Amino acid sequence: MQHIESYIKEHKDRFLSELIELLKIPSVSADPAFKDNVFKAADVIKDSLEKAGCDHLEICQTDGFPIVYGEKIIDENLPTILVYGHYDVQPADPVSLWHSPPYEPVIKKTDLHPEGAIFARGACDDKGQMYMHVKAMELMTQTGQLPCNVKFMIEGEEEVGSVNLSTFVKNNHEKLKNDVILISDTGMIAKDVPSITTGLRGLSYVEVEVTGPNRDLHSGLYGGAVANPINILTKMIASLHDENNHVTIPGFYDKVETLSEDERAEMAKAPFNLEAYQKSIGINSVYGEKGYTTNERNSIRPTLDVNGIWGGYIGEGAKTVIPSQAFAKISMRLVPHQDWEEITELFKKHFISIAPAGVTVKVKPHHGGQGYVTPIDSLGYQAASKAYFESFGKTPIPQRSGGSIPIVSLFEQELNSKTILMGFGFDSDAIHSPNEHFGLWNYFKGIETIPLFYKYFTELSK
Amino acid sequence: MQHIESYIKEHKDRFLSELIELLKIPSVSADPAFKDNVFKAADVIKDSLEKAGCDHLEICQTDGFPIVYGEKIIDENLPTILVYGHYDVQPADPVSLWHSPPYEPVIKKTDLHPEGAIFARGACDDKGQMYMHVKAMELMTQTGQLPCNVKFMIEGEEEVGSVNLSTFVKNNHEKLKNDVILISDTGMIAKDVPSITTGLRGLSYVEVEVTGPNRDLHSGLYGGAVANPINILTKMIASLHDENNHVTIPGFYDKVETLSEDERAEMAKAPFNLEAYQKSIGINSVYGEKGYTTNERNSIRPTLDVNGIWGGYIGEGAKTVIPSQAFAKISMRLVPHQDWEEITELFKKHFISIAPAGVTVKVKPHHGGQGYVTPIDSLGYQAASKAYFESFGKTPIPQRSGGSIPIVSLFEQELNSKTILMGFGFDSDAIHSPNEHFGLWNYFKGIETIPLFYKYFTELSK
Repeated sequence: MQHIESYIKEHKDRFLSELIELLKIPSVSADPAFKDNVFKAADVIKDSLEKAGCDHLEICQTDGFPIVYGEKIIDENLPTILVYGHYDVQPADPVSLWHSPPYEPVIKKTDLHPEGAIFARGACDDKGQMYMHVKAMELMTQTGQLPCNVKFMIEGEEEVGSVNLSTFVKNNHEKLKNDVILISDTGMIAKDVPSITTGLRGLSYVEVEVTGPNRDLHSGLYGGAVANPINILTKMIASLHDENNHVTIPGFYDKVETLSEDERAEMAKAPFNLEAYQKSIGINSVYGEKGYTTNERNSIRPTLDVNGIWGGYIGEGAKTVIPSQAFAKISMRLVPHQDWEEITELFKKHFISIAPAGVTVKVKPHHGGQGYVTPIDSLGYQAASKAYFESFGKTPIPQRSGGSIPIVSLFEQELNSKTILMGFGFDSDAIHSPNEHFGLWNYFKGIETIPLFYKYFTELSK
Repeated sequence: MQHIESYIKEHKDRFLSELIELLKIPSVSADPAFKDNVFKAADVIKDSLEKAGCDHLEICQTDGFPIVYGEKIIDENLPTILVYGHYDVQPADPVSLWHSPPYEPVIKKTDLHPEGAIFARGACDDKGQMYMHVKAMELMTQTGQLPCNVKFMIEGEEEVGSVNLSTFVKNNHEKLKNDVILISDTGMIAKDVPSITTGLRGLSYVEVEVTGPNRDLHSGLYGGAVANPINILTKMIASLHDENNHVTIPGFYDKVETLSEDERAEMAKAPFNLEAYQKSIGINSVYGEKGYTTNERNSIRPTLDVNGIWGGYIGEGAKTVIPSQAFAKISMRLVPHQDWEEITELFKKHFISIAPAGVTVKVKPHHGGQGYVTPIDSLGYQAASKAYFESFGKTPIPQRSGGSIPIVSLFEQELNSKTILMGFGFDSDAIHSPNEHFGLWNYFKGIETIPLFYKYFTELSK
């Protein structure tokens, strides 16, 4: 393909300033306080797709936040790529830990990003990575090199479970028909170790509530005589792992995919430096399920993590209270063959069963999704591999990610297409955390690599 | 004594409206946001003591909130009663559970309070009970019946550990010299079962902090591979009780006072209806240390309760995060002979020792105090017993309370005086909880009983 590098060079500043404007919109889908901004982000995406050369732009309303759709059909006989991404972001909490305000993007250099990185909520997940596709589209249409058809479907509820997108996909098989789905919402190993994500974990996210007395009680007058919902909640949560850090929910592991020793040996070849890993997140020891390595623990094994806990007095100073209630948000990352709805039921049944007399327990499922594995012998994978080889000068490594994009397995089921996960972020980019960032090098490398995928996928499809 | 009932009858409305004005001041000592109001409450108390007939009024400044002092010395040969109380209140959180705003007092009838009760933070603990003494003082001076000397010492930091009061007491032995200390900051069993509190539990209050990674992490990318501070905190807290609900901290029970079977049998005679107890707080089962009854569990046995816990994402919706830190506020109620500083050290040492590799733990002691037991053969107890007999028509029952007034044991140590705990609240008055209230009957009964204590204490001292 011609002119890729020169077009990027010429428009670099604008590519960056457009992304920065998008990052200024606090499109937090989880928190109703940000509702207007989520809608605003959808409008911006629509305009940007139109300017990039898409036709038939639509803001598709749902029961929640809208899905932005656009397409460019140049020839019905050519293959069609469906690009998926999301314009919503995770909450920025705890805001006090950000070194610069989460919605006032700044560019700073870091050890891993000597060319600079944009610091803002959503910089990597997923505004930055999604916008690479918009700019790659612009590049291909402006230089007259779009080799195939393309459809864009950008949603605003990925961070809250994509519930309305599921309905949209189920109701629009014809509109969304495609030959391959392309997503950049994952990571790569390192600058000099390009990788393509071939597996994602599933997810079950629940909220639990433990209720004891019908009002907060004085811990002196009642302490020791009444079940304290916080003490009980800690006991119940603690019991969900045994001494080997196996999850104790009956049936939890029944359907877990078992990898062969060969497969595990193959995985173990991926470059990994335990010392650097520990240093990067400031811990003196890793921790996890007995019998598995760090890379296995966060990819091929299911987990159970408390994502939030609260109850009683959490203000300044001291209050001697036994609270009426205590709460926790708990998520389980699942691996292929574990069904998220079944696991949610198993959790619910087990958690209620272990509540002692003196409290009542409620389990409220939030959302979930199935895990996913992509074969590496598909056309899509081969095209991606060639694209990376051309832009990075190296064949990419297939890599299982510990993260979840619940909608991917639904795409396969409903649209009968494989998804290619071309992620350009680093694990250290602090997605979902304070000080999220995305390297400028990564952003432009993505814009450079994506058109090559279009080229090779079109060629291999002939 | 003459005119007690008629004076109360005549001034009833004013006694009530003055208390209501005091309750409108949100004097929360734990939260810096309420600082000005705590100082304001001190001024109001000073004025009210002056109007009640005290001399030498002082607002004694400390490193925290001031101590209001006033006295009336009528004859150096007569005994001196030191009245202690506090004008600060607990935080009102969770405010959403109040049926009326915590600082807008309203009078409503309840099953236990058919004459009505004042609902407001501090109504019972301790503004209402403390103000009974101010009004009893007014009654005695206005009717010319004050039989002895009196000193008032009303502080503003009882709910945060009385640290500055300790210093004040240590530095003012002569000023505070007295023959007995009188406090109304506890409860009584029921309208027809008057009781005097003869025991208080000690307290050790700590805050713990568990730190894992140096930033919040994405629970997909890191889940299963890194110690999650919330999971670890729940495990650590859960391990503080064994399967019989004994506290597992080594040495915790070493100095616990052991009551004889006879003493326990005597205690068991206090009226107690398990069904009514459970119903009053909406639980279907009590819960506590094996081998002890409910009344023993919350009076003669030490406890460990989590009063607050927090970590991770606690907002609306879902956030898939492994937080960098998790926190809890933990208090231990202690019984006679357990030293609170020693127990705090044992807790700290043990809690740090059970932290697994992968996290670091900090324990920050908040405050504490020793337990206390009053002998029932003292002059003060005998005087109180006679006073109750006269106003209630029944001899009061001596009762151990599960609560703590840490300063009481310091009073004995520094001032060499016994404290008489004449409480007029009910356990169901929801102190430290939403919808705290204090019965009008109880308020006026207190004002009626207190002058009788003065009378009998003076008589018995002759």
